[in-house]
Amino acid sequence: MTPKFRIALAQINATVGDISGNKKKIIRYIEEAKKRNVDIVAFPELSVIGYPPEDLLLKSQFVSDSVKSLEEIMTHTQDIMAIIGYANNDDEVSNAAAIVHNRRLIKSYHKIHLPNYDVFDERRYFRVGETGYVFEINDVRFGVSVCEDIWIPDSVTEDQVRYGGAQFIFNISASPFHRNKVQERKDVLIDRSRKNGIFIFYVNLVGGQDELVFDGNSMIMDNRGELRYSGKQFEEELIIYDLDTSKLEQKSVHPTPGTRIPCDYDIKVIPVEMFEINEKVKDYNAPKLRCSMSEMEQIYQALVLGTKDYIYKNGFSKAVLGLSGGIDSALTAVIAAEAIGPHSVVGVTMPSQYSSEGSIIDSELLADGLGITLYSVPIQKAFDSYKQMLSHLFKDTDEDITEENIQARIRGNVIMALSNKFGWLPLTTGNKSELSVGYCTLYGDMSGGFAVIKDVPKTLVYQLSLHINDKYKREIIPLNTINKPPSAELKPDQKDSDSLPSYDELDPILHLYIEQDYDIKRIIESGHNEALVKRIVRMVDRSEYKRRQAPPGVRISPKAFGKDRRMPITNHYH
Amino acid sequence: MTPKFRIALAQINATVGDISGNKKKIIRYIEEAKKRNVDIVAFPELSVIGYPPEDLLLKSQFVSDSVKSLEEIMTHTQDIMAIIGYANNDDEVSNAAAIVHNRRLIKSYHKIHLPNYDVFDERRYFRVGETGYVFEINDVRFGVSVCEDIWIPDSVTEDQVRYGGAQFIFNISASPFHRNKVQERKDVLIDRSRKNGIFIFYVNLVGGQDELVFDGNSMIMDNRGELRYSGKQFEEELIIYDLDTSKLEQKSVHPTPGTRIPCDYDIKVIPVEMFEINEKVKDYNAPKLRCSMSEMEQIYQALVLGTKDYIYKNGFSKAVLGLSGGIDSALTAVIAAEAIGPHSVVGVTMPSQYSSEGSIIDSELLADGLGITLYSVPIQKAFDSYKQMLSHLFKDTDEDITEENIQARIRGNVIMALSNKFGWLPLTTGNKSELSVGYCTLYGDMSGGFAVIKDVPKTLVYQLSLHINDKYKREIIPLNTINKPPSAELKPDQKDSDSLPSYDELDPILHLYIEQDYDIKRIIESGHNEALVKRIVRMVDRSEYKRRQAPPGVRISPKAFGKDRRMPITNHYH
Repeated sequence: MTPKFRIALAQINATVGDISGNKKKIIRYIEEAKKRNVDIVAFPELSVIGYPPEDLLLKSQFVSDSVKSLEEIMTHTQDIMAIIGYANNDDEVSNAAAIVHNRRLIKSYHKIHLPNYDVFDERRYFRVGETGYVFEINDVRFGVSVCEDIWIPDSVTEDQVRYGGAQFIFNISASPFHRNKVQERKDVLIDRSRKNGIFIFYVNLVGGQDELVFDGNSMIMDNRGELRYSGKQFEEELIIYDLDTSKLEQKSVHPTPGTRIPCDYDIKVIPVEMFEINEKVKDYNAPKLRCSMSEMEQIYQALVLGTKDYIYKNGFSKAVLGLSGGIDSALTAVIAAEAIGPHSVVGVTMPSQYSSEGSIIDSELLADGLGITLYSVPIQKAFDSYKQMLSHLFKDTDEDITEENIQARIRGNVIMALSNKFGWLPLTTGNKSELSVGYCTLYGDMSGGFAVIKDVPKTLVYQLSLHINDKYKREIIPLNTINKPPSAELKPDQKDSDSLPSYDELDPILHLYIEQDYDIKRIIESGHNEALVKRIVRMVDRSEYKRRQAPPGVRISPKAFGKDRRMPITNHYH
Repeated sequence: MTPKFRIALAQINATVGDISGNKKKIIRYIEEAKKRNVDIVAFPELSVIGYPPEDLLLKSQFVSDSVKSLEEIMTHTQDIMAIIGYANNDDEVSNAAAIVHNRRLIKSYHKIHLPNYDVFDERRYFRVGETGYVFEINDVRFGVSVCEDIWIPDSVTEDQVRYGGAQFIFNISASPFHRNKVQERKDVLIDRSRKNGIFIFYVNLVGGQDELVFDGNSMIMDNRGELRYSGKQFEEELIIYDLDTSKLEQKSVHPTPGTRIPCDYDIKVIPVEMFEINEKVKDYNAPKLRCSMSEMEQIYQALVLGTKDYIYKNGFSKAVLGLSGGIDSALTAVIAAEAIGPHSVVGVTMPSQYSSEGSIIDSELLADGLGITLYSVPIQKAFDSYKQMLSHLFKDTDEDITEENIQARIRGNVIMALSNKFGWLPLTTGNKSELSVGYCTLYGDMSGGFAVIKDVPKTLVYQLSLHINDKYKREIIPLNTINKPPSAELKPDQKDSDSLPSYDELDPILHLYIEQDYDIKRIIESGHNEALVKRIVRMVDRSEYKRRQAPPGVRISPKAFGKDRRMPITNHYH
């Protein structure tokens, strides 16, 4: 019999602040791993408290609770080793990985590389770890690191191998999704495993948390940089893998080794069945590589999971949204229906004198096809009453954007009234292109608890809609909705193209300015019209105040309008 | 004649991103200092680009523009030395102080201690500086440091003295105001100057930037920790001081001194007149100590400056707000009138069937006394139209908070319509107590561009109102407004006390929970009722989503609801 370690990666969905619930889930996974004779089970970064806990970490009781919860989890580690992410507290707070075994804390490793860019603020909360460790069991050595530690080349991983003689490592992560992130992660892990000649067991969090979606996609890389296993995306999973330790290389151990913590116990390896509530892994030593999802499907699933977790984790069971007959609200409705079921979604048409008959028909078609409830609340009378109320003040003025915004705000008020009366979460339907240039009404169509597609540019809204119809092989989003020219329908014969360039022109400029931080000159040099670029940039800069008051929504790009983009409102830089 | 350095501190109001405007202002102050035969003039931290520039720093062009602007400023330094805060860029971006003289960059010092807590995110943007310097002129040595550098004991200042032989130092700062901040700063400077036996020339920024107010209050501490001069608060000022260098001590210079940059030129000291656009300092060597403002006046002035700079720096000239007859909107109106003049402020009463006659009279009294315009827009008809619109959906329900919120949102829509039509900045009037417990309507009374008193607890609203009446020796805020029980007037005979404890009970609990991060147990141990504490904490936790969409407003406490408090919305920690 070859010497083996049976290793499990518990790709769980932890909830921020739910220390008790997360603890129970971790214990449940440990017990399941024990049943399957796992030797070492690893959980994601900060599993005990959820990620990112933000300023909860400034509450000393919160961090004490994290430690206390870990201690309770420890009592369930008889005959199994567990690696668990938690916040530790000795004098200062650390982003820690507890290595526990037989009810005993072997070591608390403190994350060394604390990301403080994009959506990350870890230097705000955590002390920088100073020491890496390797652990030896029956003459086999492995290292443990936390998320960013493995992203930095020639650092923690290399030290663990060169100075500690690590033959494989665990990296426990909370790595949020954005487009192309799967490939970025894979590239890093391939590089680290190949250069160091080690297996890497990478376990990532899954679940939505405010603007972030953690997509799981845990991975096992062998010592030649080959992907041995790729975990599910957007779902919990317990991954089990038998590591043949007889074939592991060991690099020469440097004369000043890292601290060595021996834990001499017998590893039992017995064939077991799969973890039934998750995917069955039939052949441990040659697990199947999952066909990775298409990019469109990844984005769609990220939007679905982000929406679902926001709704449920915030204690809602139903959602409400305005349906305009346009593609944005249609896509949002589909995502909501996929997330919480069509019977839990209420759409509302709120026609005014400027609404086309087609818009109402398209909304009805959508609602029917999707199986969601549809209400109708015509807003004309309210609109008339505002005009009357304000007539003494507006008597010498022309109708302008004011009257358009009044309509949008009446609709916002109606959606909020339904939310207040029935306890439904209101969803907003604006896309990233609109929000970028401020083509949206604050307290109007921007009213709501969650902005499902706020990070989805309009051109991607179209792609996703076609993808959905293609995936389900039917016209879920009515073709007329996809094909008609976009319009806010707030004045006679209005079209988006009256105020904006075509989205095919707009989106690439927005991408360069917002996501790439290009300056105007460089955008123009990339082949865009100078006057247009200047106009767009001005629109983006001037609508910062709207975005500051926008609801949160799912991040799917490397730079969304959340914690990853912190622009001053008062800003004279142009 | 005794050897002297004539030193100037240019306490300026820089605007974020206004690189061209800030440059012009800096040059103007340098020219003024030259006229007054100043030897060394110091400007606040990041003066060239404004503070905090946030993610503008991620744009490489922005940092290049900062450097370019500094180079233009340098051409104006013939016969004067200037110390100027700017963002430097060599490979990485630094929070830098340029020491320039005779059109030449003597040195660029890079801030060593980068704050990354509270409202500060400097580790997100800047490389940590590694080297301190002292500068020698005619055998006199001085050091330069940036803001946080002087707050950390046994660090930069001490090294400059012990290893560099510094006899005095400049600290250039961007230190935002909050209650008691003046004393905190003074304590630090007293400690550093006394322990090191050095003069400290501390120059701070002035002006409002989104949620922050920089209050100036530059200081000169002598080598025994005595305050020689305390700069104006909330105003620009050029402070000039003749330092008698013959009496400066020099600690023994350690055998490994800091890098020494000699700049051998003659210092001319000639008696001069004062900088006329600011306070005249009659006797340089014994400048008068300004009587420091009372705490109430400091807070009031912070609110005024924060509001004024937000309005003007964002290109508005007028503001509009709803007047309910209550104390919150009255105080907000007074602050707005003080900030931009009463003729630029428009108040709007929006009575419904639940508004008392007294409320309208109180609003009229306030508007008359203050000299602001008052409009009246009764909202009853709009309210009726909403009820009618929604009657088919609400037919089996009772009236509840939904109908209250509809009224608040109609008012929000009216204020926004006036803002849209006439280009006025809408101000919101909610206080910190309300915003803490969620006793406010999202998209209703929370609608607006700037929330003037969002960091002012209700009990402080009363204190400020009494202070204002006392200061102006007349009933600016009507006594009836101050004395009547607070009410939202959204249903018959409603009082705040129906839903909330008295503000005298509420505010201390909120202070402990929000500003002190106490846990429930500790708040109760401080002498508060258990059931009440639990209820309040739950209300605070559950209304995080409202605060996320609140407009910015002036920060006057050590923990406001801005960048200094970053709580997850999805949060199961209770």
